[in-house]
Amino acid sequence: MSNVIEALAAALGTQVRTGSDIPSRNHADASGLQPTQPLALILPQTTEDIAAALKICHQHRHPVVTQGGLTGLAGGAHPETGEIALSLERMNGIEEIDQASATLTALAGTPLATIQQAADEAGFLCGIDLGARGSCTIGGNIATNAGGNQVVRYGMARRNTLGLEVVLADGTVIRSLNKMLKNNAGYDWTQLFIGSEGTLGVITRVVIGLHPKPQGIQTALCAVSSFDDALVVLRKFQQAHPGRLLVFEAMWREFMTVATGICGLPAAFEAEHDVTLLIEADMGEDPAGTEAFSLLLGEFYEQNLIKDAVVAQSRAGRNRFWAYRETPYEYGRFLPEEIRFDVSVPLNRMTEAVEHLRQEMPRHWPDAVYVVFGHVADSNIHINVAIRDMDDGIKKGVQKLVYDLVSGLGGSISAEHGIGRIKRPYLPLSRTEPERELMAKMKQMLDPEGILNPGRVL
Amino acid sequence: MSNVIEALAAALGTQVRTGSDIPSRNHADASGLQPTQPLALILPQTTEDIAAALKICHQHRHPVVTQGGLTGLAGGAHPETGEIALSLERMNGIEEIDQASATLTALAGTPLATIQQAADEAGFLCGIDLGARGSCTIGGNIATNAGGNQVVRYGMARRNTLGLEVVLADGTVIRSLNKMLKNNAGYDWTQLFIGSEGTLGVITRVVIGLHPKPQGIQTALCAVSSFDDALVVLRKFQQAHPGRLLVFEAMWREFMTVATGICGLPAAFEAEHDVTLLIEADMGEDPAGTEAFSLLLGEFYEQNLIKDAVVAQSRAGRNRFWAYRETPYEYGRFLPEEIRFDVSVPLNRMTEAVEHLRQEMPRHWPDAVYVVFGHVADSNIHINVAIRDMDDGIKKGVQKLVYDLVSGLGGSISAEHGIGRIKRPYLPLSRTEPERELMAKMKQMLDPEGILNPGRVL
Repeated sequence: MSNVIEALAAALGTQVRTGSDIPSRNHADASGLQPTQPLALILPQTTEDIAAALKICHQHRHPVVTQGGLTGLAGGAHPETGEIALSLERMNGIEEIDQASATLTALAGTPLATIQQAADEAGFLCGIDLGARGSCTIGGNIATNAGGNQVVRYGMARRNTLGLEVVLADGTVIRSLNKMLKNNAGYDWTQLFIGSEGTLGVITRVVIGLHPKPQGIQTALCAVSSFDDALVVLRKFQQAHPGRLLVFEAMWREFMTVATGICGLPAAFEAEHDVTLLIEADMGEDPAGTEAFSLLLGEFYEQNLIKDAVVAQSRAGRNRFWAYRETPYEYGRFLPEEIRFDVSVPLNRMTEAVEHLRQEMPRHWPDAVYVVFGHVADSNIHINVAIRDMDDGIKKGVQKLVYDLVSGLGGSISAEHGIGRIKRPYLPLSRTEPERELMAKMKQMLDPEGILNPGRVL
Repeated sequence: MSNVIEALAAALGTQVRTGSDIPSRNHADASGLQPTQPLALILPQTTEDIAAALKICHQHRHPVVTQGGLTGLAGGAHPETGEIALSLERMNGIEEIDQASATLTALAGTPLATIQQAADEAGFLCGIDLGARGSCTIGGNIATNAGGNQVVRYGMARRNTLGLEVVLADGTVIRSLNKMLKNNAGYDWTQLFIGSEGTLGVITRVVIGLHPKPQGIQTALCAVSSFDDALVVLRKFQQAHPGRLLVFEAMWREFMTVATGICGLPAAFEAEHDVTLLIEADMGEDPAGTEAFSLLLGEFYEQNLIKDAVVAQSRAGRNRFWAYRETPYEYGRFLPEEIRFDVSVPLNRMTEAVEHLRQEMPRHWPDAVYVVFGHVADSNIHINVAIRDMDDGIKKGVQKLVYDLVSGLGGSISAEHGIGRIKRPYLPLSRTEPERELMAKMKQMLDPEGILNPGRVL
């Protein structure tokens, strides 16, 4: 084993660290798995360094775990004993903003927030956004096909990616720093690496497409008496103002009860409602847009589609509305240990999913606190379940309940967080045998020695 | 060879035709290649039929060309001597429109126009649209990652595809009829088949995402004095009305000269301008939107960004504007033989590209009629070149001029039409050796006997 480290040190010098020289931050990602010191940490500065490192690991058939911002929740970047960690943190920098093409080219280790800020300063918006923006990296975002709150408007990371540079398992560098929306010259191989969670190659450089900046964001909280009504509101809003909707988040009754009860926020509405919606739209700079937003909500109210609504009148008001949606970040302070799920359910089965939880949760775990919320315009919900003295048996029981439910409704066990190590045992619930066989073939094609993030995804 | 036909006939009965029972329409696609009668034509009605047929062809290592609407311009579906044609024309029908999910599920042989109409009747818009809509099929659209006029708003076929059912070369059926915007459960293998031009598998069933219907389309013709000004207009429009822009087509001076001269349309503006833009936006149902559209064009005029503009006041007016853009369909009546190019050029190099053509075309072929036009918001231009008594030597010369130019500027030799058989020799101009090697590996992985559309793309 020390052979591979010696070879790496000879090729890369001080970019290779071992033992106590490896910072503890590289011992874990955000998945909650047991921190583990990798056998070595490589801190490359160029694509060529990464190519050299992978070539050596490939020759030695030594497993490598690629690390970006270490914010992943599925254990994709979490080191296992004996693995060499390859951190992209020094591959940090924006190389070009092309105003004409509305594109940004950056090294893969650049933090998302840096990219967002650079896009903003150049008069554009970066369509990728998520809570971990301060620490996550653009390479990690693309490697996991990250989602977030604004997918209904800008799509997932895949849709925002125009070009990639990737180092393959054997050290081959492959590059298509494409800036064009249309490029049908042969297979678009970049799609292979988007969402592959570091198991097929290491993304080293990216070109993302930028969007026009929103000019007049309007925010509202709306109460509806059923998810079916929420869907009508969604489709009617999109019909009335195509391209305007930025955010369409649903928070079911139990979620608001925890927010106002345990987390101590003031009640959003006088009465209790089955679903509370957080809606944001870019209505443009013209004040007529602002008016049109409130007007439409008024129409929904008159049609008895929404039961109550408040529109934010200021940035502070907007923050107050978002505070409800962000209470899950505070649960640790108020609730016993939680299991958190990130799943998709087809929209026409969503009500069924929630009702099933409402029936089964209290029956199995009478003191369970459970909440359902999420990016419903994308079919994506999060389910958090907190149970006092949760042991492995309870954990497995809750997981079985949720995953069987999702699978039975034709949903997906991972909407935006990926599979990583943590959801790997459940992959067969969302993917058939022919699908998994094809995935295995893709892995075999690109990483025949199985050195890249082994044991993740497949 | 008759062995494979016998086996196919035994398995599929009257679905297999040979000799003069093969309609002449199956002898050619729209690429202009010499019509060729395939060895046999298979007309399957189900996915299982296709699986059975491919299994047999795979066992016999016999080449198969898959045919959809036969509207492709790159020769992807054009049969070669000895090939068995697999036509999807009987795999025709819409299976489901899911109102809640805003998705449409259809068999791959369904014509695009049928899908557009069904979406419309259900209150939605199909985001895929192109000139051949009446005959092209949704499977062919996805297999070629089709583009069209509205890519700036709805993206290419890839972005509109949520789920696929595919039959692999050996007859394995693989299916993910996903309806959800977010699904990160393992590799998204469907991406492999989108834009693979039938060389990696046969698409048999599709799920596409639907969009809200535009409520108030506004159309304008605008004259600008340079492409740089056109780009400023593009970005300012997107900034002022995010999500509204549907169409942003540029027609350079030579194009308008042919339209008004040879094709006989009335002059669009009093003076001649370097670039004429055809702009469409969905300004919503509110009359304020209509006003805002004209108002913004007025501002551009005052800023001297646009030199002249007319806004369509009626459907007839809109059609008159589109008539300019559609003159290339009439060239056959007025011009000598043409070569037509579909290329991408990064937007910051576009002016260079056009100026190079303006310098080199007349120098080499003094009587050449050449026009440049296209979907510039997507970096996609079409170049048509008509030269009297065009022989192979001239043809090759023009191709070399255009492809060298595009390649030198970092563009793509195929923006939306694909590679097929016709552009295959030029693939190295747009793709590096490591890229082509990876493509070859993908082909080898999915079609080890090389039976699917051999000689296309790679």
